[in-house]
Amino acid sequence: MNALTSILLTDLYQLTMLQGYLEKGMHDRAVFEFSIRNLPDRRGFFVAAGLESVLNFLEHLHLTGEERDYLIDSGRFSRRLIDYLEGFTFTGDVDALPEGTICFPGEPIIRISAPLPEAQLIESRLINLIHFQTLIASKAARCTLAAGNRAHLIDFGLRRAHGAEAGIFAARSSYIAGFAGTATVMAEPLYGIPIFGTMAHSFIEAQESETEAFITFAETNPGNVTLLIDTYDTCTGAKKVVEAAALLSRKGIGVDTVRLDSGDLAGLSRQVRTILDRGGLGDVRIFVSGNMDEYSIKDFLDRGAPIDGFGVGTKLDTSDDAPYFDCAYKLMEYAGIPRLKKSEGKATLPGAKQVFREFDGNTMVRDVLTLASDVRAGSPLVKTCMEKGCRTEEKMKTEDVRSYTLNQLETLPPHMMALATTPPYPVVISENLMALRTRVEKNLPG
Amino acid sequence: MNALTSILLTDLYQLTMLQGYLEKGMHDRAVFEFSIRNLPDRRGFFVAAGLESVLNFLEHLHLTGEERDYLIDSGRFSRRLIDYLEGFTFTGDVDALPEGTICFPGEPIIRISAPLPEAQLIESRLINLIHFQTLIASKAARCTLAAGNRAHLIDFGLRRAHGAEAGIFAARSSYIAGFAGTATVMAEPLYGIPIFGTMAHSFIEAQESETEAFITFAETNPGNVTLLIDTYDTCTGAKKVVEAAALLSRKGIGVDTVRLDSGDLAGLSRQVRTILDRGGLGDVRIFVSGNMDEYSIKDFLDRGAPIDGFGVGTKLDTSDDAPYFDCAYKLMEYAGIPRLKKSEGKATLPGAKQVFREFDGNTMVRDVLTLASDVRAGSPLVKTCMEKGCRTEEKMKTEDVRSYTLNQLETLPPHMMALATTPPYPVVISENLMALRTRVEKNLPG
Repeated sequence: MNALTSILLTDLYQLTMLQGYLEKGMHDRAVFEFSIRNLPDRRGFFVAAGLESVLNFLEHLHLTGEERDYLIDSGRFSRRLIDYLEGFTFTGDVDALPEGTICFPGEPIIRISAPLPEAQLIESRLINLIHFQTLIASKAARCTLAAGNRAHLIDFGLRRAHGAEAGIFAARSSYIAGFAGTATVMAEPLYGIPIFGTMAHSFIEAQESETEAFITFAETNPGNVTLLIDTYDTCTGAKKVVEAAALLSRKGIGVDTVRLDSGDLAGLSRQVRTILDRGGLGDVRIFVSGNMDEYSIKDFLDRGAPIDGFGVGTKLDTSDDAPYFDCAYKLMEYAGIPRLKKSEGKATLPGAKQVFREFDGNTMVRDVLTLASDVRAGSPLVKTCMEKGCRTEEKMKTEDVRSYTLNQLETLPPHMMALATTPPYPVVISENLMALRTRVEKNLPG
Repeated sequence: MNALTSILLTDLYQLTMLQGYLEKGMHDRAVFEFSIRNLPDRRGFFVAAGLESVLNFLEHLHLTGEERDYLIDSGRFSRRLIDYLEGFTFTGDVDALPEGTICFPGEPIIRISAPLPEAQLIESRLINLIHFQTLIASKAARCTLAAGNRAHLIDFGLRRAHGAEAGIFAARSSYIAGFAGTATVMAEPLYGIPIFGTMAHSFIEAQESETEAFITFAETNPGNVTLLIDTYDTCTGAKKVVEAAALLSRKGIGVDTVRLDSGDLAGLSRQVRTILDRGGLGDVRIFVSGNMDEYSIKDFLDRGAPIDGFGVGTKLDTSDDAPYFDCAYKLMEYAGIPRLKKSEGKATLPGAKQVFREFDGNTMVRDVLTLASDVRAGSPLVKTCMEKGCRTEEKMKTEDVRSYTLNQLETLPPHMMALATTPPYPVVISENLMALRTRVEKNLPG
């Protein structure tokens, strides 16, 4: 079984609920919406991501023979359920915020409208896909804003990402949010994302001297000469780069970049810049890595450290300051009747929803959360992307998603570009939606 | 390409370094060790996990035709590198702490001894596998200690885990650390882990009344009747369970458990217990979920809340208070010569290492970190598990790994079982190892 595609990558309760729905013939159309309940501390917005992988998941979801055998052998599931899953294909509609759209708590990032058993079955993996990619795109966008046009950013996080898929998705989500690329090789064949690579300390340590290691690396990677200079002593390493560059230039090989990975990076980058400049290597760029995030990037650049690029790893790929968002996939309507839950602290707004964004010039100034059926001024953000199980649009190129996201970031109010979170961006609930909520609450079975 | 098994799930620098190693004929034996640099705040120990998946990865690692085509088409890699990868199988040795072993900063969780290019190539995925599973097993063990024998714990985290593999690994890592099971269906066919499932709020909301929903669920899942009672009002929900139980008992169906997912769970669990007991449902268990972690589990149980089980989701699967460990896979020896790096704040101890654990009765009292070649009193923790690319032991059953881990937890000093972190557990460095460090530092090329 392939964990990335299996219909069994779900919570058991989806299957136990399905047994109930199937037994009672509850096949009416259900509307579920996925949204995030609130912003983590110090965050002002989200960047929606993961839609492409959800559409791909829905297009291909089916039960394999091996999975059917497991369901039968377990003895836990009804014949009716197994028959249903055996014939399963997703036949519903999907409306969503395009990948890269800036969004806020309560706004529908994705809406599924499908026969109840279908809309229910897909819940676990849908959340798993959208939540994580939105988490990383939101974090990466902050790094992009922190760097501005002052430095380029590269995802370095695979090793500490939470498993294989997290590493791959983090490469893509950070790229669409403005990173220049990733160190993760698979991101190139999978998504066409530019990949970047240097060397590890072990490459230096395994050789007789740093200079020898630098020369070996440059000779075998002449198109991409990035040298790691902090294995023993950063300034000594920089001086050895100057020596090595002289030897290499005779062979027609240039040094592109040096990388610093430890110590006082602001101070060291200045010292290294001076050493390189004096050694005639004014064109060689300085790249740093090690515990980077939006705050350290902004801090280094604001202090004028001569850093041209950052490798951003662990804190990006784990979104360490907010490793999850409080989010939910909630039933909004079943059989034409709006639904809600009243659970303390987790109450929902009923009905299928739309978001209208209002602008002042190119700057977003207010969102109105309203019913999907409403027509208003402003740009409706939620778009149809699948009908009856088929995509309504061509698959978007990763490059185009990235351009769209960068355009979105340019519409942020200036104070939100500065990593600040106050004042919060206004999202108002339309009168129609509030009226529906009041009406539904009155008629609750509670 | 399958992200879970691809040789290209690696950092580009592994391939650029390999080009250098191959060109210079650097095929001598390298020894790398993976260890964690320091404990996160409020943590006293780690639980090593992920070894089984690393061994499986090493056994099967190879280049597929599709991957070879990509490498050629990219134009970035030398013919020598592509030829090398085309013939690649892992031929090295692996020594490691058995999965479930309690360990501390600086101790070698896994050691790879192999020709340098092999040991280098596997770095990214090896860290990706070991780091995350150790992260989750370490967090889950704390939940197990918090619950003691007072309640059982179930992993609920798939939806907010970081991708598919994180969800699957979290199910396994929490199970080996003492959880009773998981909600993630795939964990049963993959690992034989017990799975548990109830219902979502949508199941209630889609039906005319809570009572009707309870009865539908029970009739279609008579062997596993867990009813969610907080959709509208928890105490009203509990009363409806009493009514439904009366109807169901005539059909020979019993209610097993009720689940609470919101509100003041300590207070509500008491009220619900009273309602159930008065309704003749003294055997019905109370299960709670929603933002659980080791602290909330301990707090509820210490306050005497009548809770029989906890669903632990997001905070477990993301290890939210410590979403990563500061860890590294470092070159310890190449061509028979010990190596180290001096980078500020990231210096390493050279050479292949062993850990001897000393006990007072059944309680661990001190670890000695020493050279792999040393012989001492105490139990050596690092064991050989692969030689020349072949496993030296049968694959361990998940059940046996779990028993071993639970035995390990029983050897913790009492204060470390109580989620406290002081005094820190003593790990001392042997004289031999310190002497080697001094000797290697003197001879550094720096």
